[in-house]
Amino acid sequence: MKTLFIAGISGSIGEQALEVLNTEWFKENVKLIGGSVYSNWNKLKIDIDKYKLKAVAIVNAQQNLPNDYNDCKIFQGEDSVEKAIQYCDSDISLIATSGFSGLKHTISAINFSERICLANKESIVCGGNYVLNLAKKFKKLIIPVDSEHSAIYQLLLGEVTIPEKIILTASGGSVRDIPIDSLENVTPKEVLNHPVWSMGARITVDSATMVNKGLEVFEAYHLFGVKNIDVLINRDSHVHSIVQFSDGVFKMHFGLPNMKVPIAFSISYPERKFNFNKPLLSNTKIEFQKVDYNRYPSLQLAFNILGNPILQNAFNAADEVAVESFLSGGIKFTDIYYIIYKTINKIQQEFSNSTGREFISLEEILEVDKISRTIAKQFILQSR
Amino acid sequence: MKTLFIAGISGSIGEQALEVLNTEWFKENVKLIGGSVYSNWNKLKIDIDKYKLKAVAIVNAQQNLPNDYNDCKIFQGEDSVEKAIQYCDSDISLIATSGFSGLKHTISAINFSERICLANKESIVCGGNYVLNLAKKFKKLIIPVDSEHSAIYQLLLGEVTIPEKIILTASGGSVRDIPIDSLENVTPKEVLNHPVWSMGARITVDSATMVNKGLEVFEAYHLFGVKNIDVLINRDSHVHSIVQFSDGVFKMHFGLPNMKVPIAFSISYPERKFNFNKPLLSNTKIEFQKVDYNRYPSLQLAFNILGNPILQNAFNAADEVAVESFLSGGIKFTDIYYIIYKTINKIQQEFSNSTGREFISLEEILEVDKISRTIAKQFILQSR
Repeated sequence: MKTLFIAGISGSIGEQALEVLNTEWFKENVKLIGGSVYSNWNKLKIDIDKYKLKAVAIVNAQQNLPNDYNDCKIFQGEDSVEKAIQYCDSDISLIATSGFSGLKHTISAINFSERICLANKESIVCGGNYVLNLAKKFKKLIIPVDSEHSAIYQLLLGEVTIPEKIILTASGGSVRDIPIDSLENVTPKEVLNHPVWSMGARITVDSATMVNKGLEVFEAYHLFGVKNIDVLINRDSHVHSIVQFSDGVFKMHFGLPNMKVPIAFSISYPERKFNFNKPLLSNTKIEFQKVDYNRYPSLQLAFNILGNPILQNAFNAADEVAVESFLSGGIKFTDIYYIIYKTINKIQQEFSNSTGREFISLEEILEVDKISRTIAKQFILQSR
Repeated sequence: MKTLFIAGISGSIGEQALEVLNTEWFKENVKLIGGSVYSNWNKLKIDIDKYKLKAVAIVNAQQNLPNDYNDCKIFQGEDSVEKAIQYCDSDISLIATSGFSGLKHTISAINFSERICLANKESIVCGGNYVLNLAKKFKKLIIPVDSEHSAIYQLLLGEVTIPEKIILTASGGSVRDIPIDSLENVTPKEVLNHPVWSMGARITVDSATMVNKGLEVFEAYHLFGVKNIDVLINRDSHVHSIVQFSDGVFKMHFGLPNMKVPIAFSISYPERKFNFNKPLLSNTKIEFQKVDYNRYPSLQLAFNILGNPILQNAFNAADEVAVESFLSGGIKFTDIYYIIYKTINKIQQEFSNSTGREFISLEEILEVDKISRTIAKQFILQSR
């Protein structure tokens, strides 16, 4: 019986992880002992009772809460997730929080768990090799949960030769069929209607701009040590990633798009213990198309700064600020790219001595993130 | 530097293996020390000089040959291949002979080499688990060279969970677009014009009847311990095989169809050291179709007898006899199926106490093969 902590238990990944835990093998082999939410105490209360949790964290409680509830320790406030991870000391930690704060959860999990199932993109996108080096130092296993990176991880099992190329697939996002000239005027409502994946708001917008794919390119580079990365459109998202070897062999990861599959794999690894539907391959067509970088300039920008952790961090920070502004009507859809572009240029000037090198501390990662956000906000104000 | 012996050095696989050996990494890491031919002394002489071979075998010399030639030992006659394998005692043996005699070469290679790169289908098709059990007993590694089985082997690297299903792909063969009603009258010339692979005569006919795919189903069953096998048509043969796991994950092996790729993989395993062309994936379409068993009744027959080594052996023997007769104008294309079908029924009667169990000796394997051929020949005579 392995013990598990889920950071971000009430989010989309957290909810789906709980569904996985309620299936046959997982019920008997994995014990959930802790979790965290941002503010949803009502949800957390239910989980405490249902799973008899040892400790939980609530970052921003909207009411006065006790320090204990039904034999479960309750941590509150800014560092509560890290404290709960330490207190639980679980075999496995699933970091399913989104956003920059997940980076600190991941670092805590590396200290206390043997295995980190990593669904928090920012942990690698913002910190480059920082988190991976830490995991290596403490001999901890990081298994990516992101659909594309889980696929690559699975395709590289047992391979001793580094692939010549990694090919990430993209659906093209929710406004992929809208003429480029009309993209300027698409509304948040149109963008939030994703054709394949059901996800949070930011990631759905990021999927439409392919900023998301840019972040995945950064992540793949750090996780797998391969800089030769390409992106192809696979409209129905049945191919989750491809690895290409020098001997002409391509391995493709195919299946119905559902996050429960990579979540389950990361928990039951090296075994596969989840049961899920299979599409019929007869009469199946798999098609790939090139990315039109006029439609997705942010992805081109991501490739331009690949391997530069400081600029990758700024790319993420500026996008988060820009997407928030787009969703609240502050800027146009096509402005997201310009805000990121300008922010990166500014950061490149300010950190001209440091670009190209890895982060040396968590503080530095936090600093670049903070400055990038401030710069992005200024550009948004100027654009009005 | 690993030493290598190639049984069947002048055949299609042997020739392609030599091309692989002449590429960068292989030149410096693999040393060819022996090989065998059926009767082609002129070819063998060239290889002896070029590679400074230690020993060779010639099964059916058309002229008087010395026992030594330029410091190379020459074995001749029926057991010469086994003797040359023993004499060379190489790290790796590539068994690239086709037909039933390859079974004995494989057994000899298991005795003397650490790794057997197995391109001889009959070694497993005719003997069931016999050869694999022997390899297990002597702790020897068998790596399949057949395109489909190499693909499955590669897809299962690092996987600890047995796949739920194996899906073999088939091109459909050379007469796949000819109306079923007209198949009766297709000529050997039409059948020998394969759309994708350039192979020997028997295997090209077997590809058109999908007997070949039936043999591969037997082989996959024994090699990977999975009985849930399906066949799908992939017309351009770019997908070489697929494995499907219970969690809904499919892994596909994709690339240009060329035998040098699996040959090289089997030799350089676990590394990939061959360089080969990659198709462009953008604008690529991958399509699968169901097999029409009215067009390919022999494949249905293969599924019906799967897991019964004695009948699998008879299936292969009857086919070899029937194909030979078809190629020389003795029977019609569609008669191949009937000859196999009737032979299997007859063998099932004669071995009614043994069907369903594994072979207990090489002699028994040889006996069933011999009787099956005799029966098949009788049915051919009766059909005239």
